Amino acid sequence: MPESWVNSAERTGSDLHLELPAGGSRRAAVSAALRDAVRSGRLTPGTRLPPYRSLAADLGLARNTVADAYAELVAEGWLTARQGSGTRVAGRAAVPAGTARTTGAATAAAGPAGPGRTMGEAGPPVRHDLRQGSPDASSFPRTAWLASARRALNAAPHSAYGPGDPRGRIELRTALAAYLARARGVHTSPEHIVICSGFAHALRLLFGDRVLRGPLAVESYGLGFHRSLLEAAGTPTVPLALDQDGARTEELADRPGVRAVLLTPAHQFPTGGPLHARRRAAVVDWARARGALVLEDDYDGEFRYDREPVGAVQGLDPDHVLYCGSVSKSLSPAVRLGWMVLPPHLVGAVLAAKGEREAWASVLDQLTLADFIASGAYDRHVRRMRQRYRRRRDRLVTALAAHAPHLVPTGIAAGLHAVLRLPPGTEASAVRAAGRRGIALDGLAAFRHPAATMPAPDGLVVGYATPPDHAYGPALEALCAALRPAGGR
Amino acid sequence: MPESWVNSAERTGSDLHLELPAGGSRRAAVSAALRDAVRSGRLTPGTRLPPYRSLAADLGLARNTVADAYAELVAEGWLTARQGSGTRVAGRAAVPAGTARTTGAATAAAGPAGPGRTMGEAGPPVRHDLRQGSPDASSFPRTAWLASARRALNAAPHSAYGPGDPRGRIELRTALAAYLARARGVHTSPEHIVICSGFAHALRLLFGDRVLRGPLAVESYGLGFHRSLLEAAGTPTVPLALDQDGARTEELADRPGVRAVLLTPAHQFPTGGPLHARRRAAVVDWARARGALVLEDDYDGEFRYDREPVGAVQGLDPDHVLYCGSVSKSLSPAVRLGWMVLPPHLVGAVLAAKGEREAWASVLDQLTLADFIASGAYDRHVRRMRQRYRRRRDRLVTALAAHAPHLVPTGIAAGLHAVLRLPPGTEASAVRAAGRRGIALDGLAAFRHPAATMPAPDGLVVGYATPPDHAYGPALEALCAALRPAGGR
Repeated sequence: MPESWVNSAERTGSDLHLELPAGGSRRAAVSAALRDAVRSGRLTPGTRLPPYRSLAADLGLARNTVADAYAELVAEGWLTARQGSGTRVAGRAAVPAGTARTTGAATAAAGPAGPGRTMGEAGPPVRHDLRQGSPDASSFPRTAWLASARRALNAAPHSAYGPGDPRGRIELRTALAAYLARARGVHTSPEHIVICSGFAHALRLLFGDRVLRGPLAVESYGLGFHRSLLEAAGTPTVPLALDQDGARTEELADRPGVRAVLLTPAHQFPTGGPLHARRRAAVVDWARARGALVLEDDYDGEFRYDREPVGAVQGLDPDHVLYCGSVSKSLSPAVRLGWMVLPPHLVGAVLAAKGEREAWASVLDQLTLADFIASGAYDRHVRRMRQRYRRRRDRLVTALAAHAPHLVPTGIAAGLHAVLRLPPGTEASAVRAAGRRGIALDGLAAFRHPAATMPAPDGLVVGYATPPDHAYGPALEALCAALRPAGGR
Repeated sequence: MPESWVNSAERTGSDLHLELPAGGSRRAAVSAALRDAVRSGRLTPGTRLPPYRSLAADLGLARNTVADAYAELVAEGWLTARQGSGTRVAGRAAVPAGTARTTGAATAAAGPAGPGRTMGEAGPPVRHDLRQGSPDASSFPRTAWLASARRALNAAPHSAYGPGDPRGRIELRTALAAYLARARGVHTSPEHIVICSGFAHALRLLFGDRVLRGPLAVESYGLGFHRSLLEAAGTPTVPLALDQDGARTEELADRPGVRAVLLTPAHQFPTGGPLHARRRAAVVDWARARGALVLEDDYDGEFRYDREPVGAVQGLDPDHVLYCGSVSKSLSPAVRLGWMVLPPHLVGAVLAAKGEREAWASVLDQLTLADFIASGAYDRHVRRMRQRYRRRRDRLVTALAAHAPHLVPTGIAAGLHAVLRLPPGTEASAVRAAGRRGIALDGLAAFRHPAATMPAPDGLVVGYATPPDHAYGPALEALCAALRPAGGR
């Protein structure tokens, strides 16, 4: 490119060399080349462009093509055209050269490893992912899902492709009401279900939009992500202690300002036990007496291995329990769908918070999931995954018994993770030892409420669902090597 | 009816006497009686309703029946519900009689009739939907979409079914960067694009999560939904006047506290013109000089009928313009996907607001849309719809010329709606006349910023995209009959 005409407002005509890519619209190519030239500083403000006829002749293009490109760039503000003064580069301050592309890009790209997840310091890259929270992504039932999508999208009325009902598709709410009654003992009807993008979305709607007001009692161990979300929404959280029967709901009596409590009754997250039946009844009594609400997070209720699943607390009192579930553990977090089963008096407020149209949850996925559930494919998938995860859990228990018998896995009757209790004071070093062997996992400390006053047991939270089957054995071997009694060094 | 509790915010309980007609749904009867009480002024704003249990006992009805009626009326905006404060009559001036088609259950299901949408009073049910905002739902390309879904879901790596990258799938961001450059003159790269659920989600992330801070300058006419969303997020909005060249960006100079402006440069919503090239350049200059930001809402940029599309302002300065788009107009609002093209320095803050994992946008839809764009199916669909909507616009113009020649359609070079300018003082009666013929549409007043100081022209906003093809002719006939010069009475 000739440098000569840069910064020279009056150099024009044949000085302007444009290189056009082959193929595609010629007009678009001329426009793009001119934009690049302005952006890069080759064409500076005030520079007069050659008459379109000349440039067209230079480029071997039709005159109209170049005239159209000029007109387009004038309309977009890159160029100005004045009668008698020709077409010029718009007279504004210099465009920053090479607008940014180079900066900031990789910073936040890391994705899944974020706040609330501790990892071994300065260890090798993650080879074995034993963090809790995700199902085996390699097991997503692509074929069955696509079959449901084909049936559902073809069968849907035209209106399904218009603005959505913020309650969610009736097909999905109907399928869910039946499924949740059968599988989780939830007592509801389609008009009291509101679809959302998952539990985080539910928390935002309920607290961010002031359907409910804090302070909110929570379990002393839980997801830091949820706590920060609540704090960002201006909702203080108050920790309840945990013991072998789950959250100590009796502590609610000492918290007169608390009108809502968030619990994981089927499988306390992350410590792993169910909430004792006595406490299930007690917390419902508390809610009734106080006009308060129990928020039930049933995040992995389908996965119970040794007996029948523990039913939802919601069934005890649908007027005082708000039940939340999603497909993030049972199917995939890539399907961004969850549901709130609401006490009737809250339906209106939640819908008001959600907005006049569905603005969040994919209607196409909703239709597909409705078919997936109603056709029985969801049950089949859950059953298959339950067997797979149970085998993995059994392998974990066996391997630890053989290679690290001092560590007792707990919370293993259900869910997609176990907690390995450790001798006091050894958790941090165990996480580091695992990290040195390329194992990503969290210690219990990562889940502790900052204001918790209960004793802080040492333990590792081992997610056994995430690796694909072929990678699970090597991950277990590495874990046992890291934790063997002599220490992981 | 006892007058005693009128105007008494704290009189509740058994004071509320409702007379229910015999027969029919009890819930509907309760809802109707409550609406009547509010409409007639017997129940005044702020009045607290009795607990639904009490009212149910009084009326001899099941509790859920009354709870459902309350929920329905909250969803419709007649009542408000907050935990701890009970259910109250919504605190606004008289509720427009006959809001949204009288039947409660259908209302929430129908969706689009909500805040900011005026409709004819006491008219017959909606037979012709000429409200702006939605594409023709009957034209969704089901077959092509399913073909893309099959290819994309089968080709995706296993990890696509795990926790998602909050930026959005790289396949989609790559396809979008190329498409937006080609079709809209947007200058970006995949790492500066963040996927979201649509423009409302973008506003929530940007302002609700304090990536940007208000006050935000907006156009004097726009979507009330966006204004309320911003207000709920604590962001005051400041209206800019509009003239024949679009938003008067020069007014920004008089607003030293304003550091961001929201514009619809390609097609002002709803008045319909493009932002003049001089102002496009000027607003970018303002943003540079002030270290401020232009938020570009390119909601229907693909639909321009008489010449080449007007490119995005973003191309002028990718460091100072945040470009937003979605598939809601071009494809379907049922695909809840949109995108932010970010100045590089904002990428980190937006990702921090979005959270460590993708919690909103369906990864399956993202994969499918990426294939849909990359395979050319998106271009084909947009081309087909552009032709269809242009024909509809032409039919509208022809019909008005023949039957209501005093009304001049404006803003018709682009988009999915036209504005029919009306003689001063006639807008409200024209909306009512249309309502009496079963036509749902809005007057310009429904879109006016409450603090706007510019003159308030009278006009009807006629959406011509929503009805299916077979229903469009009858809708036009009804519109012309309602607006013919003799008046619609």
